[in-house]
Amino acid sequence: MENDTIVALATPEGEGGLAVVRLSGPQAVAMAGQVFESRRFGPEMESHRAVYGILFSSNKEKETSYPVDQVLALPLLGPNSYTGEDTVEFFCHGGRMAARMVVAACRKVGARPAGPGEFTRRAFLNGRISLDQAEAVADLIHAESEASARGAIRQLLGGLDDQLSAIENPLLELLSRIEGSLEFVEEEEVGVPADEVIDTLKKACAKVGELLAMAPAGRLLRDGIHVVLAGPPNVGKSSLFNALLEEDRAIVDDEAGTTRDVISARLVRDGTMFVFHDTAGLRDDPGRVEKMGIDRTWKKVNEADLVLLLSDSNKPGPNPGESYEAPIIHVTTKADLDNFNKDNVLSVSSTTGQGLPELWAALDLAVRGFRLQEAVAMGVVLNERHLHKLATCRSDLEILIHELESTEPGDEVTGTMLLSILSQLGEVSGRIFTEQLLESVFQRFCVGK
Amino acid sequence: MENDTIVALATPEGEGGLAVVRLSGPQAVAMAGQVFESRRFGPEMESHRAVYGILFSSNKEKETSYPVDQVLALPLLGPNSYTGEDTVEFFCHGGRMAARMVVAACRKVGARPAGPGEFTRRAFLNGRISLDQAEAVADLIHAESEASARGAIRQLLGGLDDQLSAIENPLLELLSRIEGSLEFVEEEEVGVPADEVIDTLKKACAKVGELLAMAPAGRLLRDGIHVVLAGPPNVGKSSLFNALLEEDRAIVDDEAGTTRDVISARLVRDGTMFVFHDTAGLRDDPGRVEKMGIDRTWKKVNEADLVLLLSDSNKPGPNPGESYEAPIIHVTTKADLDNFNKDNVLSVSSTTGQGLPELWAALDLAVRGFRLQEAVAMGVVLNERHLHKLATCRSDLEILIHELESTEPGDEVTGTMLLSILSQLGEVSGRIFTEQLLESVFQRFCVGK
Repeated sequence: MENDTIVALATPEGEGGLAVVRLSGPQAVAMAGQVFESRRFGPEMESHRAVYGILFSSNKEKETSYPVDQVLALPLLGPNSYTGEDTVEFFCHGGRMAARMVVAACRKVGARPAGPGEFTRRAFLNGRISLDQAEAVADLIHAESEASARGAIRQLLGGLDDQLSAIENPLLELLSRIEGSLEFVEEEEVGVPADEVIDTLKKACAKVGELLAMAPAGRLLRDGIHVVLAGPPNVGKSSLFNALLEEDRAIVDDEAGTTRDVISARLVRDGTMFVFHDTAGLRDDPGRVEKMGIDRTWKKVNEADLVLLLSDSNKPGPNPGESYEAPIIHVTTKADLDNFNKDNVLSVSSTTGQGLPELWAALDLAVRGFRLQEAVAMGVVLNERHLHKLATCRSDLEILIHELESTEPGDEVTGTMLLSILSQLGEVSGRIFTEQLLESVFQRFCVGK
Repeated sequence: MENDTIVALATPEGEGGLAVVRLSGPQAVAMAGQVFESRRFGPEMESHRAVYGILFSSNKEKETSYPVDQVLALPLLGPNSYTGEDTVEFFCHGGRMAARMVVAACRKVGARPAGPGEFTRRAFLNGRISLDQAEAVADLIHAESEASARGAIRQLLGGLDDQLSAIENPLLELLSRIEGSLEFVEEEEVGVPADEVIDTLKKACAKVGELLAMAPAGRLLRDGIHVVLAGPPNVGKSSLFNALLEEDRAIVDDEAGTTRDVISARLVRDGTMFVFHDTAGLRDDPGRVEKMGIDRTWKKVNEADLVLLLSDSNKPGPNPGESYEAPIIHVTTKADLDNFNKDNVLSVSSTTGQGLPELWAALDLAVRGFRLQEAVAMGVVLNERHLHKLATCRSDLEILIHELESTEPGDEVTGTMLLSILSQLGEVSGRIFTEQLLESVFQRFCVGK
């Protein structure tokens, strides 16, 4: 499959100063030579040296050929290219037509249009990056906040791979010692002492646990921190929602039950993305339509990363007596009309802005508990796939430890289970992969990456 | 003004595999060195050699700095860069965040965000390209058809400049001979013979005329060929409009007067852009609202490059007796219901498709008269600005020729008028320019070009 040469526009479609067309595969240099005319693009060409020239609409020797753009061609010879294959990148003039004509010219001399993520897929298959690094590339492209982009780039620089190696290497060493003892089963005293095996496994298990503790951070970096505003009707949820967003997103009205649907808005603050959800008021005797809004509210509250539970400082009353999974920040609203004070509750006025800095401080404190900075610094931005594999890995490690501590299963069984655990770990980085796994990873990519 | 170093995203905003950030100016290499870490980016750096490395969020020596992307940096040292200045291009991961953070990093070490077209403006001011080539760059970026892009690239490769030089050079030589004769006024027989002056001027005038004859082609390449469908109500204009576009764009209805507004649609066919306009039916006793539609029709017909004048083959009647400025193709419609035939009129059925290939052939023949291919091949894609300057130039040449033939104005007057003509020509290529002229040219550009 990697015997053909692929081509695609690598930059976004649209008007711009510059567009880049990437040609990659065994015939990349030969094909480029057919459509690109330059004094310096030939046998004396060097990798990584950009040369100016003219790109033609098809094989430049043909009479029907005509110049389509003046371009800078950058040959990047394998293995020192993104894909690991011979690559030529053409930097052509921006806009739709020039790049389209350059891609068409490459196709006319035999290049195949690249599929989504195909360049990165080749980079992975040629050992240029690991699978979790490929996923970090997609995370970086889709990043909507600075923290998310920073986490992705650290992962791309090998953050998660380092963590995985620190788990895998002692297990691999253990496996080879156990397998060694199986080969020389006739000799004495070559078995690995059970205490040492258990100790190594427990350390690995603890490290996997540390990575798993980072899992929420990965999701929060990628999807944002979902903060749900909840509380009784007319408590001022929509006003606070608008005050937090510093714009008039939600419809604010004095009549109770105004917000029937959940209204959501994103806010990137100090590089971290928040998603605020303004919900229908929670009360006991709603109308039928309002009831649907309240059902949606409970759904949102149960999915929240943080809940701002609002009560009116002028109408103190019991909060809806449900339990919440997410951390809760209690807020009393309409502080500008305040008649009395409560302890341990943030008092906020959306009208005057009173208490908003304290509310943001409370939000930032709660966010700190999610360990985003730690995940960013370590480059461990786990996704569902990593999470699933690592959780399986931890549970298998726990089973094996339990077996060893209770039944002495013997080296052969231990070896087999260890191999299975290492496979799970290998799938995270992609040292072990299936076509199906690649399909699911690369479907997130756009064409040209 | 060109003492500062500017930075901008050079590729379109949006999700993609790759984004390019361009840093240009005297401090480009020094600034790049502050944010970019690579073994090979330092004193031993070579122009045009791309190096991999890591880009930091600010001066990489600072403790608060963190890696923002893994990039390929391409130093292009002046004068061998697009702008003619020292330039460093960073090829970073696609998506919004990475490029934004790279631009921010460059700004933190002192680069200024580039204004629209500022890179190309510097290219012009540093003598890398002429003004009409800069305009060709903008044409190429905005091109919506292959013919338009091809014309722009030929102009960028120097097509118009060659034509202008062929006009200017003999005039410049003439001017220097006339000025020479003014200096040595004491000596005899140094004046340039009037016949020779007139001959040179007439040749120049003819060449300017040839360029001006290309002017419509420039507009048609840029804006498309505007084809207006006109004719009596219910003749089947909307049906033919849809048949030509091969899709249901216009509302087709049997009731007369359905199309009250002009409906327009673009079609790129064999690399040439057509803009079809479906109009209100032209009849004598329209209602008030319909009258407005008919007024719009006449406006469109007067602006058209081609008019398709439709009549119903089943209801032959006089065409609206107006005169048309644009070439007309007569078409009878509803050929599938045809009762009789006329000579020299294309007979078309939008229902069966009968006659459509012949109509396209007639359109292509009419388009050939506009000399688009010739303009593309010569790279002479004139815009309003060129047209205005060249027209002034021709009329000044004609005046001077007339003066010389009738009054013998003397070398001093001839020299002054010749200088003025050369100024007009110089403004086309930008050999002579004002700040105001540059403003008007570069306002068409996007940021990053």
